[in-house]
Amino acid sequence: MIIVMEKHAADERVERVVAELIGRGFDVHRSTGADQTVLGVVGDVASIDQREFELFDGVQEVFRVSEPYKLSSRTFKREKTIVTARGVPIGGHEVIIMAGPCTIESEEQLLVTARGVAKAGARVLRGGAYKPRSSPYAFQGMGVEGLKLLRAAGDEVDMATVSEVMEISQIEGMLPYVDILQVGARNMQNFNLLSALGQIRKPILLKRGMSATIQEWLLAAEYIMAGGNYEVILCERGIRTFETATRNTLDISAIPVIEKLSHLPIIADPSHASGRRDKVVPLARAIVAAGADGVLIEVHHDPEKAVCDGPQSLYPAQFARLMDELRIIVPAVGRSM
Amino acid sequence: MIIVMEKHAADERVERVVAELIGRGFDVHRSTGADQTVLGVVGDVASIDQREFELFDGVQEVFRVSEPYKLSSRTFKREKTIVTARGVPIGGHEVIIMAGPCTIESEEQLLVTARGVAKAGARVLRGGAYKPRSSPYAFQGMGVEGLKLLRAAGDEVDMATVSEVMEISQIEGMLPYVDILQVGARNMQNFNLLSALGQIRKPILLKRGMSATIQEWLLAAEYIMAGGNYEVILCERGIRTFETATRNTLDISAIPVIEKLSHLPIIADPSHASGRRDKVVPLARAIVAAGADGVLIEVHHDPEKAVCDGPQSLYPAQFARLMDELRIIVPAVGRSM
Amino acid sequence: MIIVMEKHAADERVERVVAELIGRGFDVHRSTGADQTVLGVVGDVASIDQREFELFDGVQEVFRVSEPYKLSSRTFKREKTIVTARGVPIGGHEVIIMAGPCTIESEEQLLVTARGVAKAGARVLRGGAYKPRSSPYAFQGMGVEGLKLLRAAGDEVDMATVSEVMEISQIEGMLPYVDILQVGARNMQNFNLLSALGQIRKPILLKRGMSATIQEWLLAAEYIMAGGNYEVILCERGIRTFETATRNTLDISAIPVIEKLSHLPIIADPSHASGRRDKVVPLARAIVAAGADGVLIEVHHDPEKAVCDGPQSLYPAQFARLMDELRIIVPAVGRSM
Amino acid sequence: MIIVMEKHAADERVERVVAELIGRGFDVHRSTGADQTVLGVVGDVASIDQREFELFDGVQEVFRVSEPYKLSSRTFKREKTIVTARGVPIGGHEVIIMAGPCTIESEEQLLVTARGVAKAGARVLRGGAYKPRSSPYAFQGMGVEGLKLLRAAGDEVDMATVSEVMEISQIEGMLPYVDILQVGARNMQNFNLLSALGQIRKPILLKRGMSATIQEWLLAAEYIMAGGNYEVILCERGIRTFETATRNTLDISAIPVIEKLSHLPIIADPSHASGRRDKVVPLARAIVAAGADGVLIEVHHDPEKAVCDGPQSLYPAQFARLMDELRIIVPAVGRSM
Repeated sequence: MIIVMEKHAADERVERVVAELIGRGFDVHRSTGADQTVLGVVGDVASIDQREFELFDGVQEVFRVSEPYKLSSRTFKREKTIVTARGVPIGGHEVIIMAGPCTIESEEQLLVTARGVAKAGARVLRGGAYKPRSSPYAFQGMGVEGLKLLRAAGDEVDMATVSEVMEISQIEGMLPYVDILQVGARNMQNFNLLSALGQIRKPILLKRGMSATIQEWLLAAEYIMAGGNYEVILCERGIRTFETATRNTLDISAIPVIEKLSHLPIIADPSHASGRRDKVVPLARAIVAAGADGVLIEVHHDPEKAVCDGPQSLYPAQFARLMDELRIIVPAVGRSM
Repeated sequence: MIIVMEKHAADERVERVVAELIGRGFDVHRSTGADQTVLGVVGDVASIDQREFELFDGVQEVFRVSEPYKLSSRTFKREKTIVTARGVPIGGHEVIIMAGPCTIESEEQLLVTARGVAKAGARVLRGGAYKPRSSPYAFQGMGVEGLKLLRAAGDEVDMATVSEVMEISQIEGMLPYVDILQVGARNMQNFNLLSALGQIRKPILLKRGMSATIQEWLLAAEYIMAGGNYEVILCERGIRTFETATRNTLDISAIPVIEKLSHLPIIADPSHASGRRDKVVPLARAIVAAGADGVLIEVHHDPEKAVCDGPQSLYPAQFARLMDELRIIVPAVGRSM
Repeated sequence: MIIVMEKHAADERVERVVAELIGRGFDVHRSTGADQTVLGVVGDVASIDQREFELFDGVQEVFRVSEPYKLSSRTFKREKTIVTARGVPIGGHEVIIMAGPCTIESEEQLLVTARGVAKAGARVLRGGAYKPRSSPYAFQGMGVEGLKLLRAAGDEVDMATVSEVMEISQIEGMLPYVDILQVGARNMQNFNLLSALGQIRKPILLKRGMSATIQEWLLAAEYIMAGGNYEVILCERGIRTFETATRNTLDISAIPVIEKLSHLPIIADPSHASGRRDKVVPLARAIVAAGADGVLIEVHHDPEKAVCDGPQSLYPAQFARLMDELRIIVPAVGRSM
Repeated sequence: MIIVMEKHAADERVERVVAELIGRGFDVHRSTGADQTVLGVVGDVASIDQREFELFDGVQEVFRVSEPYKLSSRTFKREKTIVTARGVPIGGHEVIIMAGPCTIESEEQLLVTARGVAKAGARVLRGGAYKPRSSPYAFQGMGVEGLKLLRAAGDEVDMATVSEVMEISQIEGMLPYVDILQVGARNMQNFNLLSALGQIRKPILLKRGMSATIQEWLLAAEYIMAGGNYEVILCERGIRTFETATRNTLDISAIPVIEKLSHLPIIADPSHASGRRDKVVPLARAIVAAGADGVLIEVHHDPEKAVCDGPQSLYPAQFARLMDELRIIVPAVGRSM
């Protein structure tokens, strides 16, 4: 931590800050210039609330030097993490496509869709059984019955499965059926849920909160990893801005930013980011071109009849064409598909 | 719901939309102008995802006419709701001040602070026992032991108590000690928690999510009310914007907006909104001047030693001076204190 | 325009709104449902401020049906516009790369950079002679002397030229040297400047304002086009959000959104959007993959010595590699390069 | 400027950064901890683009210590500036209310409104003669004819006058009629205009840009002050956020933030911030309670007939009631009115 004193701050003010720091067990390096003193604070500064020192008389600014997250940081682990779910490696050379319906509705719906996306080359099957709906009057998901259908469909087409967990009490019941547990944007800072997921040993797909900074997102990953579960996949899904032409603003820059700051795999979800089918295709191409490790896409064999988010679901044929386009792009980022 | 067709849309395109609507059991009013047709859809349109119709050929735009929330709306209930917690009426003529430390740390800390804020005129005592911390390495709260201290302190100074609930499993243990259960900003869309709180019969203080629209906030209240618990207090606490000079941007306009849209009491929290003591005082005055039903303020008898958020906690003497200033302001909004 | 009356609004309130509309010369279509009346307003509603009607007693909501922009809209002109600058077609089959230094510093700097980008395949040479600097103490550009260097360099390598105009008084002096006049983000709503640019007959590259909605951006284009200058190229350059990891948040979704709403060419600038060289390359790939008509990139032969924005400028060799990557991507969007 | 090297950065990397700094004429203080080196850079660092050093190998982070603005800073000038316009002191003990119509429409409209607001206690008369309209098809203002009416009305009721300047060419023609020249939000970074206003000797009312940070706003003031015109009044008018319930989000916290960072007077405009009459009154009260030096309010004697922004204009009687409420509040902030 760096504490910058005001220009010409009185010596006793500098002394008071130094005394406080030493009293708390930190080492202090003092750098005195012609008209300004700067203090370098050494020790476990993660425990300090920097605003405490901002309020001392004579202090101009306080900077936190070290990142508050550790386990998810590239500083902590240089080489990229590959998370493996039922044999599918996420974060490696291959760009992984995860696809399937927003919500599991029936055996037929899931099977038809699963066969379509598997044939086109998707490796992970998505499908929601517990649905976070902004209105209490909307359909809330099929629950465990849906998960059984997901497992069966995944087995038939040889795909790993991913589904959202909303509540601690659901975790145990999901484990037999789901290869990757997804934490939705609205739960990114549900710290009790994150801690509970740190106790299991299955990959977690952690969506970015609607207005979470990248640092907060990595701290959320830290909650999971601090419990010993290091298999975290990050998923960008759009942030909230003033623009209303799309449901959210896909933060495409987050892909190279995460790539630099963290060793965890980073994928993105163009379906929730845009909210409309005709925008999903160009965004999916952009995500791969930006260097993401994967894409999470909603596909429905009959979107007009979808219980939820039909308008942002691709038709199977559209998805197949998109896969062809992505295959053209991957060599440009030195990847395969 | 209103569906606006494109200019000169072919008749068969209009017919297709109308047929779909009628097939789903809605009534349709058709208004045909010189070059444009507009369809009014009547029935329980809350179940429609408007994007489905946006994707029909020939459709230009779709507007949802009715608010998606019901129980929290002024349309549903004209007269203002007064929520009463241990005899303290929130939403009535009196502006209610809730004050106390961010985190309960010890019996002495809580008692000294409670006596100070009670003497100055605060009616509700706040204090956190379960703390949502963005880092897993930070102090997570005293739990039930803290709640017992809160109850004892509240009883001594004759104040109602408010404390945050983070997880369904904590609810039952909190009921004996807490008069108002607070849902934090990060849990505003933790729908399972909201539903569970709909099953109890105690007032809920629902903080606005960091990037929640006012409509989403009212829908979150709806989750609680749909369960039969109508005692919801809304609390504005700052939204996330590009400005970094303050921790969050207090959305002061939310106060008159909520006042118009909803019958629920609306208060605001200047401590979390600004994150710094020297900004809390002017914001608290502004909140009351804007017409809020109350203010939630962090006060600590010794902020330098506070375990959490000390820099945004007022000193008891500062709080007392603020109360004097608020007493000057309340007649300007036709209220008492 | 659609006016939705409140449920059970008294007839006389409906009558008052209708009378006002008819008094102003509009036609009104009335649709009366079981419990709600909806009014469709026909005529030149662009002149109405919809809030006027929102304030009438009994009115619940007012929707504007037609877009407020005309000349820039796909409704007005279905086929895509190709803007041609010194023989370079922007908006056609070929993806056009514009490259060069942020600021023109010297003949040598510009020539070395121009030769590098021309060889790699760029078609338009950029270079600033008038610089909008947020601090009055920073270098403000070489002015006309710089423009002469730009023209000479463009001629030598056979590229069109683009440079920013900040002030009406600069326009005339720029015309002999510049093929495309750029309006910067900070001037997107400098309406006097836009109107003046509507009077000339040269292509205008209109950057999106830092917090402009897409609709405001198209209205700014309208200012230029209303004067008779239809040669407008739109350029997305990042919007301001709460995220601070990048200078701005590139709104990649704006590319398909503009493609649908407008017939004007749409390009994007990854250099200003990200502010850092290592993010420019992945964003440039994403921009092309999303379907943009071109990319505007800062390149400097010696970025460490650049007077301005060196950290976001690519090295010529980096730029050449990027061009190779983009050539891999373009077939995926059905384009050439 | 502070440069933080990565943990265990190789000595030669540290040396390279130090050599570069010394080569540019800066002094460097080096602080070497157990595992990390921090460099303090002394000299005129305002000229450095900090990203240049962020890109050096081995550099972890770079912090700018000093504010980039000088003349507008409290560090530069401790005592509050009082700007005086035709005898009206802005920034002193008295809270100054500026009121009048959005747009000057006619002699009668202006006179009736001016008499109303003068009688209620307003000290400065506002009225637009050049209007920045987002659509080219909207009324653009009466120009000099309007300014003459403004001067005459101001003289009759003994008020100072304020009106917006949009273009350098308008300045000279405005000087005889206007006591305060207003720079609108859209022109906050129109640097040529700001520089030109630095050459005159009349107070400037500088509105905050729609998405300007407070630092950028102070830098815009710096442009004016660098020319020798120190009479700058800052005006908060709402920033752009994701919330759509109000036109903009009034950043009420900006008032105490500016009060701390700058010696310039700070006022706010609730009319543009909210866009609706029923929100203007509570926001105006909040602005005064937060400690602002003044309020800028739109009032129209007949808002239904207003050419522009009628829905956000107060009726004269509403304005008079608001003034009474503000008179109750001012003692709470130690001010008079």
